[in-house]
Amino acid sequence: MEIEKSAHLIMLYDFYGQLLTSKQKDYLELYYEQDLTLSEISEELSVSRQAVYDNIKRSESLLEKYESQLKMVEQFKNRNRLYYKLESYLKTKNVIDENIIKLLDELRREEL
Amino acid sequence: MEIEKSAHLIMLYDFYGQLLTSKQKDYLELYYEQDLTLSEISEELSVSRQAVYDNIKRSESLLEKYESQLKMVEQFKNRNRLYYKLESYLKTKNVIDENIIKLLDELRREEL
Repeated sequence: MEIEKSAHLIMLYDFYGQLLTSKQKDYLELYYEQDLTLSEISEELSVSRQAVYDNIKRSESLLEKYESQLKMVEQFKNRNRLYYKLESYLKTKNVIDENIIKLLDELRREEL
Repeated sequence: MEIEKSAHLIMLYDFYGQLLTSKQKDYLELYYEQDLTLSEISEELSVSRQAVYDNIKRSESLLEKYESQLKMVEQFKNRNRLYYKLESYLKTKNVIDENIIKLLDELRREEL
């Protein structure tokens, strides 16, 4: 059985990856960033496929737990939706200018 | 020796308190929210003053570690500064209206 490579989990990893051990990060990077299969990782690291599966599953539960406690991803998405709404509204009102665009860009850069 | 009750640490606790154990949270709440001294907590919980000191110090190191990894507080402050700048600028340009104020309020509510 493979583990679904969902965009949601990749996002959780972007936000909370720092809280994982380097071993946990290694597995997730091979799986998500280098897009290897569980079997390929198992060969690459000379461990059983089951060990790879368990390791990745455990890391994912941890990432989900962090999100349930800190809600960084949920709030990130909500803020981004609001930046977009604000920008669209200012455009509609025809009051947007370089300064406003710069401030909105700065806000988006403060996310991650 | 007392531990400084800094606004910075209270903020770290607001953001990362969820990641602490309930025992760690109990100590920090007595210290920060109920504003007891280390000696008062020591009496309240029937443990040595040194144990209280060590427990709080350890929790504070943990909170600092989380901030160094996730930077939630730093980014929160930066975004708030930018909300303020954006709001001031829109006021100066005389284009602020109820919709914009509502969107900015919604943004601030997505912080914490």
